Amino acid sequence: MIKPQPTIALDTMGGDHGPEPIAMGGIEAARRFGIRVTLVGPHSQLTHFVDVAGGAPPTLSIVAAEEWIAMDEEPVQAARRKKEASINVGLGLVRSGEADAFVSAGSTGAVMAASLFSLGRLRGCDRPAIAAFLPHRQGGVLLIDVGANVECRPQHLLQFAHMGSAYLERVMGRKEPRVGLLSVGEESTKGTDTVQEAHRLLTRSPLNFIGNVEGKDLPSGMVDVVVTDGFTGNVVLKAAEGIAGYVVSELKHSLKSRLDYKLAGKYLAPGLRKAWRSLDYTAYGGAPLLGVNGIVIICHGRSSATAITRAVEVAGDAASRGLLTHVQETLRS
Amino acid sequence: MIKPQPTIALDTMGGDHGPEPIAMGGIEAARRFGIRVTLVGPHSQLTHFVDVAGGAPPTLSIVAAEEWIAMDEEPVQAARRKKEASINVGLGLVRSGEADAFVSAGSTGAVMAASLFSLGRLRGCDRPAIAAFLPHRQGGVLLIDVGANVECRPQHLLQFAHMGSAYLERVMGRKEPRVGLLSVGEESTKGTDTVQEAHRLLTRSPLNFIGNVEGKDLPSGMVDVVVTDGFTGNVVLKAAEGIAGYVVSELKHSLKSRLDYKLAGKYLAPGLRKAWRSLDYTAYGGAPLLGVNGIVIICHGRSSATAITRAVEVAGDAASRGLLTHVQETLRS
Repeated sequence: MIKPQPTIALDTMGGDHGPEPIAMGGIEAARRFGIRVTLVGPHSQLTHFVDVAGGAPPTLSIVAAEEWIAMDEEPVQAARRKKEASINVGLGLVRSGEADAFVSAGSTGAVMAASLFSLGRLRGCDRPAIAAFLPHRQGGVLLIDVGANVECRPQHLLQFAHMGSAYLERVMGRKEPRVGLLSVGEESTKGTDTVQEAHRLLTRSPLNFIGNVEGKDLPSGMVDVVVTDGFTGNVVLKAAEGIAGYVVSELKHSLKSRLDYKLAGKYLAPGLRKAWRSLDYTAYGGAPLLGVNGIVIICHGRSSATAITRAVEVAGDAASRGLLTHVQETLRS
Repeated sequence: MIKPQPTIALDTMGGDHGPEPIAMGGIEAARRFGIRVTLVGPHSQLTHFVDVAGGAPPTLSIVAAEEWIAMDEEPVQAARRKKEASINVGLGLVRSGEADAFVSAGSTGAVMAASLFSLGRLRGCDRPAIAAFLPHRQGGVLLIDVGANVECRPQHLLQFAHMGSAYLERVMGRKEPRVGLLSVGEESTKGTDTVQEAHRLLTRSPLNFIGNVEGKDLPSGMVDVVVTDGFTGNVVLKAAEGIAGYVVSELKHSLKSRLDYKLAGKYLAPGLRKAWRSLDYTAYGGAPLLGVNGIVIICHGRSSATAITRAVEVAGDAASRGLLTHVQETLRS
């Protein structure tokens, strides 16, 4: 299953800013890294973007899909009905073996539903889950699930831990990832009944389980994979984005409050921008949907071209390092 | 029930840094604001702190309690058994009418359990809840519940909304507070079954309900009261603290990375410190436990003397503005 030169099917539709930044990000990934990228979307627009970008790199191709699924459509119905939508066309390329991974910045619900219909689940995975990085100075923490399953049983949380750990170890190269269970206190008796039972299952698992972790531990560098249900994970991920953005805007505001601060602030701007980039959660290369029988990377709807380039690169790494085989192995262990 | 000069019983035990910062914060509240403060704790130590602080202000008194409940004790058992612990002695002063409010930086679980035993619940409140402020430029958002109830039914979430709204309107003076329900999307169909049913209940309530809000909306200023279960609320509150702290430390790190940045950073330090203070969630004056039949303010275990002074002031405001009457009225409405 490990291919040296994987092909990435990139859905160019459904993003907040239209197909342009997504197509441009894909073209850049093909040009800069020589990744085989198949842009999926409206043919005439995509050829136009390729022209604007100075022509197609040798590893770039286009597959037409004139339909798409909008953010406000009921995702399960739309994924089932719209066979010609870019999400279904792109996933079809993965199912047929023409592509090794699928990347989309479209409706998360539609990508999840269509992935289940097209690819099915891996054996041993009851509930696919979305894993997202929260960056910090030591490289970031993988939070799983951030929205696929708003309600979870203890067994699901155990499976998330296995899948997140395999992803971090095999794709991101982090040795024996430390797995934490998100709760309201360190003690194993803290949290809901589901969390307490998941703690028991994780303790008996072969994973490097370090016990419960709290919200404050997320950016601490003490844990690599944080397991939680998709409701809590989604709320925390979005709160982290909102609060990081707020803190930075507050500091900017403070620096502008006096003329002398303003001048010094301008002087410091490059340093502040660098720090801010390391905190810009939308710049990270998408979040893998783990547990489906294929590599699927979900990007933020407002992803920039740079974020898409990074996501295509991550998808390529996941394919060439055999993510599916590793996740399947850990689920069976 | 509205008293012009309320008396605040201040538990000096159970904090992370021992009784000194708590006692000093209480003495300062009495000295600076003329609030009647009763320090509850080990008599000889407290008289020593009063001496160190230059003697007792006229509105300060001491009530001895030589026992206390440690952070690592099983809270319900300890609250039931240790009748002479500072938490129980302080709450006893509220029950007997000798004090109008109770403030503690001790074990949250023990304060909750002891408050239920000593004071009981308000009529119409099935589950008391802890409400905490997340500060932002427009004054902050009240998050309720942040840890009293890890699992909640829709009816409980509705009661939290009533109590939080009454607190914000009557104690903090915010008119017709906008109430949001924390979920994973704006649409009423998003979230767990519990959240969806709570959405229906809130829509039919007399509250100023603005619908679902997401994690990113917390620091946005678009909502005044955010209702959630105590598991999600606790995780989000602690994540907010951790991430705000991380962002600031990351910026400091970035400013120290080059000598010229370092010099400019020193120049900017007062502005940065001011911005940071507005984000320091531990500096805020404690979190009210709403729904018990008495005013109880829970402070962070690592509260500074300044945070305690502020919490005593908040407790005084809550008492003199008739918080209990208002919460009781809204629960009956």
